[in-house]
Amino acid sequence: MPDSRLERIHLTRRSALRALLADAALDALLVTDLPNIRYLTGFTGSNAALLVHAEGEERSVFCTDRRYATQAKTEVPDLAHVLERASAPALVARAAEQPAAHGALGFESDHVTVDTFETLTRFASGIALRPTPGLTEQLRMVKDTSEIEALRMACAAADRALADLIEHGGVRAGWTERQVARELENLMLDHGSEGASFPTIVAAGANSAIPHHRPSDAALAEGDFVKLDFGAIIDGYHSDMTRTLVVGKPAAWQRDLYNLVMTAQSAGVAAARAGEKVSHVDEAARGVIERAGYGDEFLHGLGHGVGLDVHEAPTLAKTGVGTLSAGMTVTVEPGVYLAGRGGVRIEDVVVVGEGDNDVLTLSTRDLVTV
Amino acid sequence: MPDSRLERIHLTRRSALRALLADAALDALLVTDLPNIRYLTGFTGSNAALLVHAEGEERSVFCTDRRYATQAKTEVPDLAHVLERASAPALVARAAEQPAAHGALGFESDHVTVDTFETLTRFASGIALRPTPGLTEQLRMVKDTSEIEALRMACAAADRALADLIEHGGVRAGWTERQVARELENLMLDHGSEGASFPTIVAAGANSAIPHHRPSDAALAEGDFVKLDFGAIIDGYHSDMTRTLVVGKPAAWQRDLYNLVMTAQSAGVAAARAGEKVSHVDEAARGVIERAGYGDEFLHGLGHGVGLDVHEAPTLAKTGVGTLSAGMTVTVEPGVYLAGRGGVRIEDVVVVGEGDNDVLTLSTRDLVTV
Repeated sequence: MPDSRLERIHLTRRSALRALLADAALDALLVTDLPNIRYLTGFTGSNAALLVHAEGEERSVFCTDRRYATQAKTEVPDLAHVLERASAPALVARAAEQPAAHGALGFESDHVTVDTFETLTRFASGIALRPTPGLTEQLRMVKDTSEIEALRMACAAADRALADLIEHGGVRAGWTERQVARELENLMLDHGSEGASFPTIVAAGANSAIPHHRPSDAALAEGDFVKLDFGAIIDGYHSDMTRTLVVGKPAAWQRDLYNLVMTAQSAGVAAARAGEKVSHVDEAARGVIERAGYGDEFLHGLGHGVGLDVHEAPTLAKTGVGTLSAGMTVTVEPGVYLAGRGGVRIEDVVVVGEGDNDVLTLSTRDLVTV
Repeated sequence: MPDSRLERIHLTRRSALRALLADAALDALLVTDLPNIRYLTGFTGSNAALLVHAEGEERSVFCTDRRYATQAKTEVPDLAHVLERASAPALVARAAEQPAAHGALGFESDHVTVDTFETLTRFASGIALRPTPGLTEQLRMVKDTSEIEALRMACAAADRALADLIEHGGVRAGWTERQVARELENLMLDHGSEGASFPTIVAAGANSAIPHHRPSDAALAEGDFVKLDFGAIIDGYHSDMTRTLVVGKPAAWQRDLYNLVMTAQSAGVAAARAGEKVSHVDEAARGVIERAGYGDEFLHGLGHGVGLDVHEAPTLAKTGVGTLSAGMTVTVEPGVYLAGRGGVRIEDVVVVGEGDNDVLTLSTRDLVTV
């Protein structure tokens, strides 16, 4: 059944996009990135294109192929449909047939490959295809209420899964990283997740010093750091959280390292306010780590936007450009990695606010020993 | 530990690519597609670029970022490394600094976006960036022994998972599609799979008429077709199999539909021989369905290559171009979908041979009732 609340949300988003098109003197935007299409229409299939026309809904058109005909009727009840396997060329051809004020059709040059662009050009006839990156992503950066609620639920599913895992003794000496990862993913499903946001990271002992370690058959041992980086999906929205535990009694160096990263993470969360430059937010956390002499062991940026993609704009990094706005949802995830010994990362999802931030991941950040 | 057998395999593949570069009068190819990089080097991380130089290994270079420094040393012991976050521009800049016979660097225009191409151009100085799609994919189409063994193991893991599922009574009236999908994915992990090849499809009753249905909370009921489309991953290689079962006693129309699709599928498998045009293979199966009057209900192509990607070249379809060669691995998966009633799809993975084909998915194709 079409859901009129959802239809209104999608219409609002397409209207916002149309305003950007008018500013850019484009007749229409060809949207081909699937998360962008989902954002603008609700469609969740694997082949689609969308033409959002500056002049309005009645000239906008959605295209998928016959495999998704039924699904498209339910999910996208409020737009004209075309069924065609080569969805993007079909919509370019259609746009080229119709009168256009500017003679210019935008396309997502940050998603469309060089070869696909050549193909689209062949269908464009007299119309100019103009590179138009990031337009829908610009809208997606600031989440609406329905999106924040989906993210809150995704973060809650991950929180509950972690609580269950620890309570059941699922992080214990003798279990392999792979076993722990699998148990965690199953517990997220138990709590309503549609799947894992990304391949779950479980990294024990020296492996915890590898930022993106994949779970192996290595067994957890007494005294290990165990880094867990994982996320749930609700209504297509991705959570992303990292916690680092210790099996048994932590050594002094482990407590010190943990406290350092926790201090840096708190500084990052506190800095992630509306109006702040993304490079400053990175600096707020990075500075803590650098002053402690571990700047070279913090091997990545501070965080990234999360939403329909697990990694989306904005990027919180030294070289990041731009300023945070209220309603953006970002991760804050500093880490310090001591090669051969172990590493700590602590990561939360934060809704950027004008005043206090709203942290969606609620698992304790205190050092948990198991 | 570096594995010298693997090193030899990667070296052989890079040598084959170098021969193609020489034919194309290119100094080097910039490889940015991650499955292509895995194929050529063994690297499994999420950020990398590779410059394969026509003149040889000593001028080829691999780039990833600091997060993967340790992993890259282990997985790619036999190439020079550069550590840089923006991996592709770094390698283009390096290529531009060095003397070049042709002054031309190939790039994967079927993977590189229009925006990334603009960025690469800024780093290319005097060197021409030449669109070079599908070069590594051309090599990947024909599998070597190690690849066929990985695919065989992936298909076996899926076969065993399905056998367990049926034996445990996991396909039964009252269970939801989502429960069945989850159980099946867990059983594949039990049998050594690294994850699901793609989101498992479980579609019961009328839902089985939706080719790409996502598992829902709909419960299986007596008399339902239950379509299961799923795959395991071993060493990065993807299996892909569809079976359609009936809960309880099949009705006459279900037997008829099943037999029709099975006949079409057998015809497709038999036709998938070395030297055969891909469009003819599609036609061999499609003709059976068309002659029975269901041509309009076969909504998709007959199959696709499988390997490091679950969908790769070649495409077996009416509009497909090219000819099969021995050692290609393709799916053969005709389906007939009766909207509102139910559908049947039967899919195997086949190694194309000179004589008899080697079918890797061994689950029975007889109608299974549960």
